Amino acid sequence: MLILGLDPSLSCTGWGIVRAEGSRLAHVANGQVPTDPRAPMADRLHTLHLALAGLIAAHRPGRAAVEEVFVNKNPQSTLKLAQARGAVLAACGGAGLPVHEHAARLVKKAVVGTGAAEKQQVQAMLRVLLPGVAIAGPDAADALAVAIADAYLGRDD
Amino acid sequence: MLILGLDPSLSCTGWGIVRAEGSRLAHVANGQVPTDPRAPMADRLHTLHLALAGLIAAHRPGRAAVEEVFVNKNPQSTLKLAQARGAVLAACGGAGLPVHEHAARLVKKAVVGTGAAEKQQVQAMLRVLLPGVAIAGPDAADALAVAIADAYLGRDD
Repeated sequence: MLILGLDPSLSCTGWGIVRAEGSRLAHVANGQVPTDPRAPMADRLHTLHLALAGLIAAHRPGRAAVEEVFVNKNPQSTLKLAQARGAVLAACGGAGLPVHEHAARLVKKAVVGTGAAEKQQVQAMLRVLLPGVAIAGPDAADALAVAIADAYLGRDD
Repeated sequence: MLILGLDPSLSCTGWGIVRAEGSRLAHVANGQVPTDPRAPMADRLHTLHLALAGLIAAHRPGRAAVEEVFVNKNPQSTLKLAQARGAVLAACGGAGLPVHEHAARLVKKAVVGTGAAEKQQVQAMLRVLLPGVAIAGPDAADALAVAIADAYLGRDD
């Protein structure tokens, strides 16, 4: 079973695919989809949608996982983030992928063992759990983390 | 020039298309895209994306218009709304449509003459401006209003 982890954001959406067989994990692929900050919003959202639809068609994951949105930030940031998330999740829906949501704290806890882990600790654990992985960047790392957490947690929290 | 007005929302997205030739307006079509509240979020977002992509392919509007999001509400409502908006705008981007955003107050002012107009007044003016129009519902009415406002205002505010 391939699990597609997603870290949607308007400026750069991270993605990561892991293979989960029982408790064994293996890295399949990861990357980041940047969008042009000078392009119109609708074009940037289309870029994200198209890239994700293509990735899903290429890799055929069995399910997707994403962190729950933390909505207490700046409302304008939430708006941008949620629009990006909408475009990305629509691509998952178009491929019939179930999407699990996990709280950020539980993702860290599943990967590192503590919900208060720093980003550096998460990335260090990714290298342990997925030997030989080359991480495309911080957004891809977050996406791999949520994919791994989903492999462990299995279902929505 | 056909203008596609949009009123995105997760539960039911309204749309309306008007033809604008100089100051003359004519109704082309309007409708609403409901989504199944029991369906997973990603499926609902895909329903919106697919419906909008289909409408755009069928009618070939030259541009789209949408109200600016008012983000000071309940953050969870903003999140749902913005995700729906992201799926809908991604479809516009996929068709290469420019999308203009207009403040809600300016839409009402453009249609009714006052930014403080009630929904009933807006709908009454739609029937005056688009003779013979049959409005599919309140979301379609809001979408027609933003299309008309865009015809008058022409550009982003």
